[in-house]
Amino acid sequence: MTSTPARSASVFAFAIGTTRTSAAGAVLDCYFPAPLRGPADPLAAIILAHFAPGVNEVSADALRRFCSAAAEAGDAGSAAAIAACLELGAGGQSLVAVLLAEDGDIAHTAEAYLKLHLLSHRLALPNTLNLNNLFTHLPNVAWTSDGAIAVAELPEAQRRARIAGRHLEVFCVDKFPRMTNYVVPSGVRIADGSRIRLGAYLGEGTTVMHEGFINFNAAALGPNMVEGRISQGVVIGAHTDLGGSSSTMGTLSGGGSIRITIGENCLIGANAGTGIPLGDRCTIAAGLYITAGTPVMVLDETGKEVRRVKARELAGASDLLFIQNGTTGRIECRTNRQAIELNELLHAHN
Amino acid sequence: MTSTPARSASVFAFAIGTTRTSAAGAVLDCYFPAPLRGPADPLAAIILAHFAPGVNEVSADALRRFCSAAAEAGDAGSAAAIAACLELGAGGQSLVAVLLAEDGDIAHTAEAYLKLHLLSHRLALPNTLNLNNLFTHLPNVAWTSDGAIAVAELPEAQRRARIAGRHLEVFCVDKFPRMTNYVVPSGVRIADGSRIRLGAYLGEGTTVMHEGFINFNAAALGPNMVEGRISQGVVIGAHTDLGGSSSTMGTLSGGGSIRITIGENCLIGANAGTGIPLGDRCTIAAGLYITAGTPVMVLDETGKEVRRVKARELAGASDLLFIQNGTTGRIECRTNRQAIELNELLHAHN
Amino acid sequence: MTSTPARSASVFAFAIGTTRTSAAGAVLDCYFPAPLRGPADPLAAIILAHFAPGVNEVSADALRRFCSAAAEAGDAGSAAAIAACLELGAGGQSLVAVLLAEDGDIAHTAEAYLKLHLLSHRLALPNTLNLNNLFTHLPNVAWTSDGAIAVAELPEAQRRARIAGRHLEVFCVDKFPRMTNYVVPSGVRIADGSRIRLGAYLGEGTTVMHEGFINFNAAALGPNMVEGRISQGVVIGAHTDLGGSSSTMGTLSGGGSIRITIGENCLIGANAGTGIPLGDRCTIAAGLYITAGTPVMVLDETGKEVRRVKARELAGASDLLFIQNGTTGRIECRTNRQAIELNELLHAHN
Repeated sequence: MTSTPARSASVFAFAIGTTRTSAAGAVLDCYFPAPLRGPADPLAAIILAHFAPGVNEVSADALRRFCSAAAEAGDAGSAAAIAACLELGAGGQSLVAVLLAEDGDIAHTAEAYLKLHLLSHRLALPNTLNLNNLFTHLPNVAWTSDGAIAVAELPEAQRRARIAGRHLEVFCVDKFPRMTNYVVPSGVRIADGSRIRLGAYLGEGTTVMHEGFINFNAAALGPNMVEGRISQGVVIGAHTDLGGSSSTMGTLSGGGSIRITIGENCLIGANAGTGIPLGDRCTIAAGLYITAGTPVMVLDETGKEVRRVKARELAGASDLLFIQNGTTGRIECRTNRQAIELNELLHAHN
Repeated sequence: MTSTPARSASVFAFAIGTTRTSAAGAVLDCYFPAPLRGPADPLAAIILAHFAPGVNEVSADALRRFCSAAAEAGDAGSAAAIAACLELGAGGQSLVAVLLAEDGDIAHTAEAYLKLHLLSHRLALPNTLNLNNLFTHLPNVAWTSDGAIAVAELPEAQRRARIAGRHLEVFCVDKFPRMTNYVVPSGVRIADGSRIRLGAYLGEGTTVMHEGFINFNAAALGPNMVEGRISQGVVIGAHTDLGGSSSTMGTLSGGGSIRITIGENCLIGANAGTGIPLGDRCTIAAGLYITAGTPVMVLDETGKEVRRVKARELAGASDLLFIQNGTTGRIECRTNRQAIELNELLHAHN
Repeated sequence: MTSTPARSASVFAFAIGTTRTSAAGAVLDCYFPAPLRGPADPLAAIILAHFAPGVNEVSADALRRFCSAAAEAGDAGSAAAIAACLELGAGGQSLVAVLLAEDGDIAHTAEAYLKLHLLSHRLALPNTLNLNNLFTHLPNVAWTSDGAIAVAELPEAQRRARIAGRHLEVFCVDKFPRMTNYVVPSGVRIADGSRIRLGAYLGEGTTVMHEGFINFNAAALGPNMVEGRISQGVVIGAHTDLGGSSSTMGTLSGGGSIRITIGENCLIGANAGTGIPLGDRCTIAAGLYITAGTPVMVLDETGKEVRRVKARELAGASDLLFIQNGTTGRIECRTNRQAIELNELLHAHN
């Protein structure tokens, strides 16, 4: 217990949780009620004194000892988190403490779950965590009304339930569970929990309607109305709305691996989509899909043709309105002189 | 107990139900097995004699007394409804009686739930009820395998379930619950209950496939095949089909706040959409989105160009076929001379 | 017990399972843990000796006698299947043995369920089974957290649950249950189990994302990434991907009743769709919907116009890239000379 209350570089993230394991002993999932990101000393020092880097199996007794030491050392927020963890030992479930000294490659299922929790607890933004080996360490699990079941053990579990006359609902079979079963961040509405994976980031004021979808490592920064799909790696800014069934591509097709972000105050219309990142105040008309290679005629505010570009040349620009001209079938981007000049300047430096 | 069997103006709607409350005492939801719309005397008089306007907390004894008095006074249909309510007192759950003297602004969660029940029980069509303050009085609730849980109390409930080794599925976090958990109207199929909100109106013969969606205060009058999205306020008529992922806009974009209705025998193709109301026998080709401002070339039955219009000028007309010409990219509306003339007549009077 | 280990023509399919029935005695569903397709003698002969063609109600004793006789006669695979069935008698549930001598019209709910199981257990490909009268013999059922409930008995069940303070989740009301509650074939991921009906065929290596959907009698042969909708009767080949919200039409609209198949290594872009079958290595650009009647300009690899066709004339051809030209709005099919010549040859013989 050091008395130097400085930020410790040695604890990137830490969490205590319960695990569920298969009959064969494999970890199926981990639940961390209160993960910590970069705790400062003296709490960091206490964590380092009690646990080894990586994944620690923990007894209820050891958990109690740690919590006692930590509760008096942490700040108020951490104290609440520690208290929440203390109770985990009460039920006899398997306990685990995960200590990530740094943001290294994922080496264990429990580490994968901790990083997914960090995202959904708003402790890390998408594309800021090292998610190497994530898929390798996430087992494919049957998520059921009885909880997590190993896929190989599912047929037996289903047979047993039928024999007993009990209903076993198999919600999905996937490497990622639903976020809502682990954490519901404050100030959100989620009309269909089956469409938000653990690892999604939902900012305050986000409403995800029934047709909305948010993958892991993807974000609606909030406030947003999400009725479309936010692909892995994609981030949408404040006051941007995604219309029903609208689509965001995971990477810039045909243009390398540029991440798609959409700025603030944008509207992607219903059944529309984008394969390019967008700045602020952009609109894509309902039903129109813009990909990186789409030829687009840029028009200024007077309707005058400025030049024809591939959509990827407009990537990241603001104040764009994309429509398909209903008379000519031409894809047009209507913008203003200021946006055009800014955009030309940006591209001149590329 | 008056003996005048006249329609009472004093009971707009009435229902007895159970409520679930948060640990903090807030009402989370109400379940009304048999709501009544505008019951006639003598039943109306009995209701008025037993309950005050608004929301009444009810004891099992008081419920019994009311049911005895009401059962002999009502008609056969009401008697069955009353009998269904009588049993509600048997389990010790919180009971509530809601008496709406008129269709006023919503002033309580239980009143909000009664109006949503009226819609889903087919006792009121969308856009015919006063839903003022609906959102104000619907709390955001975590809908779980343990039932309704206050959002603020969810983390504790999740922790308790994990400690106990019990699975708690959090289906959604929303102001609106799923209709099927309250009522399944007769003669319908609903392939995914998570996509129909309480307050949706599904007429006899409606099939909602997995991609279909019906919001509260929205209707498929039936029979219909619904594989697209029916937005709040939208009504589709008999024998109209919505293709997969098709979209109906909530209000007429760019054209004020005109409600979208779609008449009978229409087909909105897969991945298509409409921002204008349509009459009968209209088709929008798969993949085409018509908004109010879409320029449309109207063609008569011989293929002759009649005139170019904004789609909003065709709002509500019948016998329209919308396509995008695959050769020219032009949006076209193919119709017949009779429909054109009728439409011109309609608009001449606007 | 004949000793001739020849393929028996008399047993098309056979399965033992449990059934759930309504309070009124109607069969609601059947669960067959290990259906058999065309078992060879001596197992076939044993089956024929114990059961009549059609649906047999079975006692636990009779099941035991059959299993003893069958276990020693069957091959290793069948023995495991028989062992799985033997346990079904342990819980006192209703048991049924279904013996289909041939692939005749469906005459009973249990026969319908057996055929759906054959598809999802990968014992039959879509469009190879006689599914006549399928809808007639599949009752519309409320699929709930308590299991299958007859629709007519649902209101009472809901009332009872509320009175008891128990939560009853009604997942859907449909003739088809979710496949995952009956069988999860090996090597698949299913992000949302509510979107795969029993009777879907998912080959090894199939991932169905949240927006994916597979109807009964429809297949992803695997490996596939499915984020779009596979309609009844549609089959997609190996390494073909369906983008988010993409659509496959059930039958060839305007072109009769040709089944849609999509070959290998195709990509249907996000929000795109097809109303024609496709060969191998075809792409439809994101957002583009091709129907049978769509006029398409065919271009060769140099961009030279070859001829204008209706899309149906390209049905089944390989190496096609469909786009909508963003400059002219024209629908184009870019292909190569070899594909064009092959295609012309094919159509010359029609």
